[in-house]
Order: sequence, then C-alpha cells, then structure tokens
Amino acid sequence: MAGRPAALLAMRPDVADAAFPAASREHLDALAAVDYGLIVTDFTEPRAREALTEAEILLTSWGCPALDADVLAAAPNLRVVIHAAGSVKNHLGPDFWARGILASSAAGANAYPVAQFTLSVILLAGKRTFEMARRYAEGAYKPPATSPRFGNLGRTVGVIGASRIGRLLLPMLTSHGFLVLLADPTLTAADAAALVPEPGAVELVALEDLLRRSDLVTVHAPALPETRHLLDDARLTLMRDGSVLVNTARGALVDTDALVRHCAAGRIDAFLDVTDPEPLPPGHPLFRLPNVTVTPHLAGAMGTEIAELGAFAIAEVERYLHGLPLLGAVSEADLARIA
Amino acid sequence: MAGRPAALLAMRPDVADAAFPAASREHLDALAAVDYGLIVTDFTEPRAREALTEAEILLTSWGCPALDADVLAAAPNLRVVIHAAGSVKNHLGPDFWARGILASSAAGANAYPVAQFTLSVILLAGKRTFEMARRYAEGAYKPPATSPRFGNLGRTVGVIGASRIGRLLLPMLTSHGFLVLLADPTLTAADAAALVPEPGAVELVALEDLLRRSDLVTVHAPALPETRHLLDDARLTLMRDGSVLVNTARGALVDTDALVRHCAAGRIDAFLDVTDPEPLPPGHPLFRLPNVTVTPHLAGAMGTEIAELGAFAIAEVERYLHGLPLLGAVSEADLARIA
Repeated sequence: MAGRPAALLAMRPDVADAAFPAASREHLDALAAVDYGLIVTDFTEPRAREALTEAEILLTSWGCPALDADVLAAAPNLRVVIHAAGSVKNHLGPDFWARGILASSAAGANAYPVAQFTLSVILLAGKRTFEMARRYAEGAYKPPATSPRFGNLGRTVGVIGASRIGRLLLPMLTSHGFLVLLADPTLTAADAAALVPEPGAVELVALEDLLRRSDLVTVHAPALPETRHLLDDARLTLMRDGSVLVNTARGALVDTDALVRHCAAGRIDAFLDVTDPEPLPPGHPLFRLPNVTVTPHLAGAMGTEIAELGAFAIAEVERYLHGLPLLGAVSEADLARIA
Repeated sequence: MAGRPAALLAMRPDVADAAFPAASREHLDALAAVDYGLIVTDFTEPRAREALTEAEILLTSWGCPALDADVLAAAPNLRVVIHAAGSVKNHLGPDFWARGILASSAAGANAYPVAQFTLSVILLAGKRTFEMARRYAEGAYKPPATSPRFGNLGRTVGVIGASRIGRLLLPMLTSHGFLVLLADPTLTAADAAALVPEPGAVELVALEDLLRRSDLVTVHAPALPETRHLLDDARLTLMRDGSVLVNTARGALVDTDALVRHCAAGRIDAFLDVTDPEPLPPGHPLFRLPNVTVTPHLAGAMGTEIAELGAFAIAEVERYLHGLPLLGAVSEADLARIA
C-alpha cells in the first residue's frame, strides 16, 4: 500500500512471533509497511542496514542491539522508536536522545502481569506456601495450622514505591482485605489515599515506619543509582520478626548478602523473582534456605502475555501516525526516575 | 450474668485460641455463659460431662469428638451445635440428626481463603512458577520466556462445581481476564452467567467439554460417593496437552494413580493442596515430578484466618438467640450434596 511509512522490527525472532501474532500483524500492516522476513538482531548486517535507511518507525523489544551513533547515522528517516517491552535503558543512550527522536515504552502494559504475579505471591506467602510445599516433599505434612505466623487476615502489607506496578497492586491488595502502608517520597497523603477505592485503606508513611509495621514488604521502586541497596542491612533489621520480603522489581534494590543473613537467621522469609547478581550462581545460599523462594524473573509479560506488549506498541504506532501524544512516551529526563 | 444460656467449647485448645481471640470472647460473653478454662476434647472427661448437662449451645471446631448417642444422652439441654470450621460430617452422625438439634457450619466463612488461595495458584501456574523455581534452584535460570506454554493472557479456566468456593472464585477469575467455563449439573446457563458481573465471561458447559477446552481445570465439587474419582483416567485423558489441574477441594475427587501417569508423561501439570491418600506417603511419585506441586492442605482458614470462623460462629449464636434463621444452617439432607 502506497503512503504507509516504513517500519522495522528489531528484536529476537521468538519475541517478534510472541509480540506480533497474525491478528496483530494485520493491524500493523494497515498502518505501516513492515517486512516480517527481516527481524533485526544485528544492525551491521547488510539487509538491516538497508532497511534502516528507509525506516521511519522502529519497533524494538528484547534482543534489540543498542542504537549507538553508528546505527543512528545509518537511519536518517527515523522519527520514533516504540519499545514492545519495559525498560529502554539498554538500547537507547545519549546519542539517541541527542537526535530528538520520539521514544515510547510498553512498561505500562508490562505492569499488569507483574502486579498480578506479586499479588499471588503475597497471598501464598501469607500461608508460607512455598516453604510448606518443600517441607511436605521432605516428609513433614502438618503445618502448625493455628499458629499466628500463618494467614492473610488482618495483615499489613508495605508497598515501597507507587510506580506503575505499585499503583496497580494497591487496589488489588485492598480488595483482598489487606491494610496497606505505602512509602513514596513523591506523593502526598491525599495522593496515596486516592490510589484505592476504599477510604483509609492506604496510609502514606516513611520507609522506616513501613518496614517496622508491615507483615510483608513488597518493593516496586525503580533501580537507580540512588536506590541501589535501598533495603540494606540497617533497613532489613527494621523488618518485623516473621515478616516476608517480596521483590519482583530489581535485584539491586536489596543488599543480597544482608538479606541472606536475615533469612538464614529465620527472622525474614523472602520471595525473590529478581536478584543481585542475576542469575544467581548455582548453589547460592538463597537457593538452600527453606524460607526463601527464588524464581527466574517470571513476573513480567511471558508467553501469551507478550502479545499485549505488541498490541500496545501497535496502538502507539497509530497514535504517532495521527499526531497524538504517545501514552508510553519516554524522555531522557525520565530515565533518572524510572526503571 | 444471669439469664445467659450455657455454651460449651469443644475443639483443640489451639483452635479455640485462634478462633476466639480476646475481642471475640468479649462479644461471646455478652451472649452466653462460657467457661474458657474448659475447652473440651474428650466428652468422657468428668468436667466435660458435667458441662454437657447444662449446655444449650455447643461451639465446635477441629478436634471435636463425635457427638454419638452416649454424648447426646448426656446433653439433655443441647439445642444448637455451631461449627467454627467447614464440614460437620466428622462429628455429627445419624444419632445427632435424630435429636432435631439445630446445626450450623462456618463453611461459608472458610470459602473465602480457599478461593483466594486457588486464584493465586492459578495465576502462578500460568507461568509454571513452581516448576521454574525448582529448576532454577537446580541451576537452570532461563525459562523459554516466549513459549506459548507460558502466560495467563487469553487462557480458559475450567471450574468444576459452583460450590460456595466456586462461586467466590468465578468473579475473581473473570476480573483477572480469564475466560471461564463452568460445569455444574444443578445450574442453568442463565444462572451461570449471572455469577459474574462481566456479560458472557462464564459459559456453562458439560464436564467433558470443560476438560477438552480448558487450559487450566480447578475442581470445587463436594466429596460424595458419586463424585469419587470424578476425574478418572478417561476424563484426565480429555484434558489438553500442557494443561494444568488444580485441586484445593478433596483428594478423592481425582484418581491419584491416573493423575500420576498423566503428569509423569508431561501431558498435565498439577497443583494439589489435597490428595488421596492424605497425607501422601514420603517419597510418593507426586513429590518427585517436576511439574507437580503438593501442599499440605493450606487453602482453608489458617492462623489469623481462623478468627473469621470464630466470628461467624458468634454471629450464629446471636442469630440463634434472636430466633433468626442460621446463615450456616446444615440439615441431614444437605449432607448428600455438600462437602
């Protein structure tokens, strides 16, 4: 079709298949000229180079190489990069931002599965489910079913960070009856209360207060230089005996060695979907502690969920072509406060 | 206080502590005369015998012995038995029903934590979370993140039985975006559709259809002679390759040996909070299959959640004393259709 701008896909081929299933491709084809026979993973490859000279729209995702000065020089017509995944920090650097090209990320669409996963982990952690499964397999059937260490009723969950994910998680938690404490230096108490429908169900507190008062702490802050080891030994020490730490955000937010000590002492349980380092080396102490569960970064969009990231990206292409503001717009300035 | 009827607690002492914390006891004391120094676990014990002669109200829970002919003969004033737990089948038999004493169960209050647990298991099973955690601990980090075996988006969940738990679970599932198939021979299609707020989100189908069309099957039927091995080899064979079976109801609903074969073949994953036999003997094949997780009957009220069963029981005492119908009323005829 004449008049459609050229769009190029740069991501792993398996990601392209998952993000853009047949029905989505039909939608994208109506908007832009795309060659699905060319899914770029290396911008130095001659066919990629050629396509780059024409491309007005670049659709990226996991496996897209960095858009460095050399790549950008080869892409004179590039006007917008739409990332069908979360963080753009791996492929968009200073050279990119200097060119004034628009950028968008599907981080918003990726937030829902993360919030859903985190809610599920929290509800199961309240019954020490992961530990009980392990102990049962080793021969121990009966949990102390009446112990006040078990159960979700009347529990306080501390949410660190009203990020996109934090904001989706908050009403999920209050709808399941949790009392919620929120720590976020960018909000007022009224902002925080308005994040859930139930009056008074969310209380904005200082991080230290949150750690002292929560039965379970879940972290949803961005990984930035100033949030590295946000949960260090001193702050982990503030957590209550028998409390649980959930991390589905970024490993670097937690001091791993300090966490190992608190978990090994039996003071704190942990569920970690992300770690520092990641992957954890085989045999790492976190794998051997009965009260710790580690999963391989599953919380974000996976499998069928990746199609939602592609659908978001296509909707962004449509908004771009109609001259509308991009819903997932990312600017260089944003990088200092987002993941 | 004069005029208050005598109430007696028959359950394990740890259950009495969990079900009736201080604030609840205050509420109960306003309604009935209770001696918390006497928590009965053996009706032949002399003090229990003496209390039984006075008791008008019996509050029971886990650990209450059977109310057999001998016990009933010693309880001439007994008018109502209120069970601060689920099934009454273990302690109320034909002799009890012959006396015409009222009975109530907190099964309704126990349904919420079960539905909550089941929802969480379903959401995590969609990402094969339990298997991925196990494989990661053994050294394998990377799940095939783009494989269509992973992800909750666009999945169909089959719910067998619109029991109390099934009815709580249905809107939780549709609010998380699942398409839901329901098999329940007692409902019409209109009944089924009305169980969730989203039009068309629940479809009533035959059990065989449900098994053929679901990505995940969760069973919420009562354990009755006619539902024993409801999921036998022939029906498990109907389940899709790569599908998941969740059982948080009763072990006898599933033919364990047949399930072991389907799971060992890698056709079906399973998450079993209940099993047949229960507990499973150490070293049972279900403990060793990477795609099967077994938990020790955690879904119902545990720990802090048990207080909700006690609160329900006290509200029933209040209704009884005001001559109101009991919300958890159980009759002998009900036993043929409930758990």
